[in-house]
Amino acid sequence: MYNFTFHVPTRIYFGKGQIKHLPEIAASGSKTLLVYGGGSIKRAGIYDQALELLKGAGVEVFELPGVEPNPKIETVRKGAELCKKEQINSVLAIGGGSTIDCAKVVAAAAMYDGDAWDLVINSKLIKAALPIYSILTISATGSEMDDTAVISDLGKNEKWATAAPCMKPTMSILDPVYTFTVPKKQTAAGTADMMSHTFENYFSMEVADVQKRLAEGLLKVMIKNGPIALQDPENYDARASLMWASSHAINGLVGNGCSPTWPIHMIEHELSAFYDITHGEGLAILTPVWMEHILNETTAPYFAAYGRNVWDIREEDDLEAAKLAIAKTRSFLFDTMGLPADLRAVGITDETHFEIMAEKASPSGKKAFYPLTKEDIVEILKKAL
Amino acid sequence: MYNFTFHVPTRIYFGKGQIKHLPEIAASGSKTLLVYGGGSIKRAGIYDQALELLKGAGVEVFELPGVEPNPKIETVRKGAELCKKEQINSVLAIGGGSTIDCAKVVAAAAMYDGDAWDLVINSKLIKAALPIYSILTISATGSEMDDTAVISDLGKNEKWATAAPCMKPTMSILDPVYTFTVPKKQTAAGTADMMSHTFENYFSMEVADVQKRLAEGLLKVMIKNGPIALQDPENYDARASLMWASSHAINGLVGNGCSPTWPIHMIEHELSAFYDITHGEGLAILTPVWMEHILNETTAPYFAAYGRNVWDIREEDDLEAAKLAIAKTRSFLFDTMGLPADLRAVGITDETHFEIMAEKASPSGKKAFYPLTKEDIVEILKKAL
Repeated sequence: MYNFTFHVPTRIYFGKGQIKHLPEIAASGSKTLLVYGGGSIKRAGIYDQALELLKGAGVEVFELPGVEPNPKIETVRKGAELCKKEQINSVLAIGGGSTIDCAKVVAAAAMYDGDAWDLVINSKLIKAALPIYSILTISATGSEMDDTAVISDLGKNEKWATAAPCMKPTMSILDPVYTFTVPKKQTAAGTADMMSHTFENYFSMEVADVQKRLAEGLLKVMIKNGPIALQDPENYDARASLMWASSHAINGLVGNGCSPTWPIHMIEHELSAFYDITHGEGLAILTPVWMEHILNETTAPYFAAYGRNVWDIREEDDLEAAKLAIAKTRSFLFDTMGLPADLRAVGITDETHFEIMAEKASPSGKKAFYPLTKEDIVEILKKAL
Repeated sequence: MYNFTFHVPTRIYFGKGQIKHLPEIAASGSKTLLVYGGGSIKRAGIYDQALELLKGAGVEVFELPGVEPNPKIETVRKGAELCKKEQINSVLAIGGGSTIDCAKVVAAAAMYDGDAWDLVINSKLIKAALPIYSILTISATGSEMDDTAVISDLGKNEKWATAAPCMKPTMSILDPVYTFTVPKKQTAAGTADMMSHTFENYFSMEVADVQKRLAEGLLKVMIKNGPIALQDPENYDARASLMWASSHAINGLVGNGCSPTWPIHMIEHELSAFYDITHGEGLAILTPVWMEHILNETTAPYFAAYGRNVWDIREEDDLEAAKLAIAKTRSFLFDTMGLPADLRAVGITDETHFEIMAEKASPSGKKAFYPLTKEDIVEILKKAL
């Protein structure tokens, strides 16, 4: 196990009706910026309820609506400007990961003198942020309990993750009932997203028994409950299980001490940057292809352990067990969850940008589970087509 | 899943040499009370290193040595008095769970006008505490990352747990190397302790997939690494796995949302209160007896699931699978880990106090996995003899 720091200060209120804790936001001051996406939170009644609670707590509300599924830097800039102009002292995101990501960088940019994009491409510039609060409405990214945000500049085909301890939310409200109305497509993509986070952390050479066994536990929860939520969207226990599993997939619990390098996310961010596709769908398409591409004698025992511990595969030969595990993963994502199985299914029909995408999705300096060259990435993208 | 609040603000520095972060204690002020047990931290060199780092950070150190394995209220009172007299502004525990528990109540009592025992028997009186820091030297109780402390008044045969959010440590340093010198007896007792915490959280009727799968993961880690640490005390990965698993067993990860009632701990606290035995040994003795005592048609599926998911038991009949799982548990604790198998082995040879102990170990108001009557508890104690 590598050395690590584990620090998850976010106060989580989990369960039915936990929005009642929203007035605690008043501890951060009397002005908040409410960040949200489209009209779904209005249709679901969360918007009205939140406004009433905030009013009762004496908090004045400013609004940043219209956050995009791949949140844009222009929206972040608008939010930061409003915070500075109105001397707002907290940011409240109501929505999914995109909304929370946007709110995080708004909160940081509000305390930064330069342009918000600086903070996206250089996380070291993030020295402080307004306190961030969230009410989660989609189980997927785990942004409600981590320090990371992903922001795009689609004009430049750029999509990057940035992170800082001060961007960890102060408080997040996780009410599974809010996810009852999440459509099938988003439920499936969210499940793929949280599974991918777990995979990215899990497939590491490092010995870290605790993290690996916990990751396997989370994967089992996702594999069991994803299909239930698809078939029976108002199943509370399934929605609750997905919601709590998605937070733990990325809050450090299964990653700290393992030094993961997140190769699939690096490639997917390029797909989204060039084609603005749904993040979870891109991850699902890439995952089995990546697994097959890197399968060899060194990686086989890791995929075999995954198959045995998560899928209950009994095959004793590592390579065979690994192949079965990958097949199970493929079948789960595309047959059971109904996710698009290749890039053509999400509208990407040619290789035009693959070279430049592979160039940009360059590996980090850390010791990877399987270091990918530019050629590897191009090949993975071609296989995914 | 029941509604719950999850909040673990403790900053964990995990790994070799992480004591270098100790100077961060200066953020809480320039005077700290160093709380420790016997001379083991001096022999291991941790004491000298800590003093040097504190001196370098400009922190004046006061000392409360001699904390007992079942920490006594008299020691807490002494520490609190010193804090008040010297206007100390933080408490640093170096040791295992007993030392950290003692430091927690010292920190709370330092900010309380009445007697420290009030805070042990009525946690609602704990309104504030000095910031608590810890350097962990034994993997067992998880006190380094939770809000709970157990304090005894052996003169009165009283041993009670108390808890408050403000008693969660601000920072804990977990260096597995410090546990290399923990003797076999304590390594085994510590493993039994962390397993018991996981069991207490795990055996709950509530549907909570995430918590159950994570608990099974932790149990697998303990069952794998406990024996390695016994045989090869300087095995870093085994010691690291036990250390990190023990923290997660009780920090809310596998308990919040499940409403556990901790029956085995309630009985064991009476054993320790009357006979001052080692906590982990008492838990080990009681665990399989409790499992056998409450095994019936309702509980069998839960023990069977435990057996299948943790011990890889393939038996399809629930009652048979449950019996196999309990037998595996018994054999692991007593044969593999070499723990004392009954109360006689720890010097308890008659039933004199069983009635009064059972009276005091009364069930809480929560809905228990299997509610124990006073008669049940007496019977469990007799079977453990």
